[in-house]
Amino acid sequence: MTRTLYDLCGRDERLRFSPYCWRVRMSLAHKGLETHFKPWRFLQKDELAFADYDKVPVLCDGDKVVTDSFEIMRYLDAAYPEAPLLGEGVSYQRALFFKHFVERSVTPSLFRIVALDLLAAIHPDDRAYFRETREARFGCTLEAFHQPEQGRQALQKTLAPVRELLRETPFLDGEVPSGVDYLLFGSMMWAYCVSEQALAPPDDDVAHWFERMLAQYDGLAARAFTVRDLPAG
Amino acid sequence: MTRTLYDLCGRDERLRFSPYCWRVRMSLAHKGLETHFKPWRFLQKDELAFADYDKVPVLCDGDKVVTDSFEIMRYLDAAYPEAPLLGEGVSYQRALFFKHFVERSVTPSLFRIVALDLLAAIHPDDRAYFRETREARFGCTLEAFHQPEQGRQALQKTLAPVRELLRETPFLDGEVPSGVDYLLFGSMMWAYCVSEQALAPPDDDVAHWFERMLAQYDGLAARAFTVRDLPAG
Repeated sequence: MTRTLYDLCGRDERLRFSPYCWRVRMSLAHKGLETHFKPWRFLQKDELAFADYDKVPVLCDGDKVVTDSFEIMRYLDAAYPEAPLLGEGVSYQRALFFKHFVERSVTPSLFRIVALDLLAAIHPDDRAYFRETREARFGCTLEAFHQPEQGRQALQKTLAPVRELLRETPFLDGEVPSGVDYLLFGSMMWAYCVSEQALAPPDDDVAHWFERMLAQYDGLAARAFTVRDLPAG
Repeated sequence: MTRTLYDLCGRDERLRFSPYCWRVRMSLAHKGLETHFKPWRFLQKDELAFADYDKVPVLCDGDKVVTDSFEIMRYLDAAYPEAPLLGEGVSYQRALFFKHFVERSVTPSLFRIVALDLLAAIHPDDRAYFRETREARFGCTLEAFHQPEQGRQALQKTLAPVRELLRETPFLDGEVPSGVDYLLFGSMMWAYCVSEQALAPPDDDVAHWFERMLAQYDGLAARAFTVRDLPAG
């Protein structure tokens, strides 16, 4: 059976930084599912017409087409029940809260740290589209939105409960990583891929967790291509 | 079997506002466990000597003594497994994250809204102790810490993921309330008991959830005595 994930790429096709694609990539590795990652760019809407969707990730699992990263994680739990990502009942419900925590509280702070790095990482053909859609969402220019110091302070504060939890267990979901770890990791990997700067001081428990996450699945994320691997300029 | 919970009281013995006692009170109701709530004040440390502890809640369940609200919730799950509050495995782990979210992100914002209301609600004999311990923690006077508008803005932002979740289900833990609901409710009930002011605009999903929580267990929390029931002055 062919399994394909449409995966956002940047100005170099090897540069894959979408937070939503990263949470799915880690989830697929968690389930041990071999997958072909197909590079996709913002303006290639036609290529996703078959899925009746205009964003990635889109998963094609044999004949089955699934859109939206969280729906893909749910689908993987339903189709491959071993090693649950989100689980069911209250487990699922609490993971859903964590998804909203990441998307409403963590990702906006990260965006302030890397807004212009992100613009630079995107394919030149996609930049006008990216600028237009994001500036409409933020109500200001990307240049005005880019406030790394403010973003870092907000992130530090937002992650306080995560830091507290990591004093007790190596991963957010306990002794081994699972769905909730991938939700946060996806967003942090997004910033990690496009930025030259470290995200947290090296003695921070969150930074240590991030290192452990990079090392999972034989260093799947540690081996990822980042802007630091690009030739200068 | 006798079951007693030592429960913080204020300047009127009927005034019970501790966020940690409220999460346990709701948890006991969730388990259907009849309990005697024994009023306790900050300086009555001697009365807790038997528990080798100096704060409430303290639960005496027959011969068993359990301290710390979250430990009491764990104990209740272990001793009365029906209708889990926190659950086990990843369910538990995700509830533990939520506990830290409430204590590190929600409660500090609420404290800024009600710091002086809280001081006024406390028994006059306890106020010097309360002021001294809290001012040492905050590094400023209670008067300087009391910033209701700033607290309200921070709370609105912090609760964004909660609000998002409540668009999908009536309670944080799904169709019926459970441990995670009680963790947040305890802190909001704390502010509700000591303050004259509403916590959220009446059309907010969080406010609607709070109303539903007040109504649980035959209006257990709705019937609580608050400062609004005290004679003026």
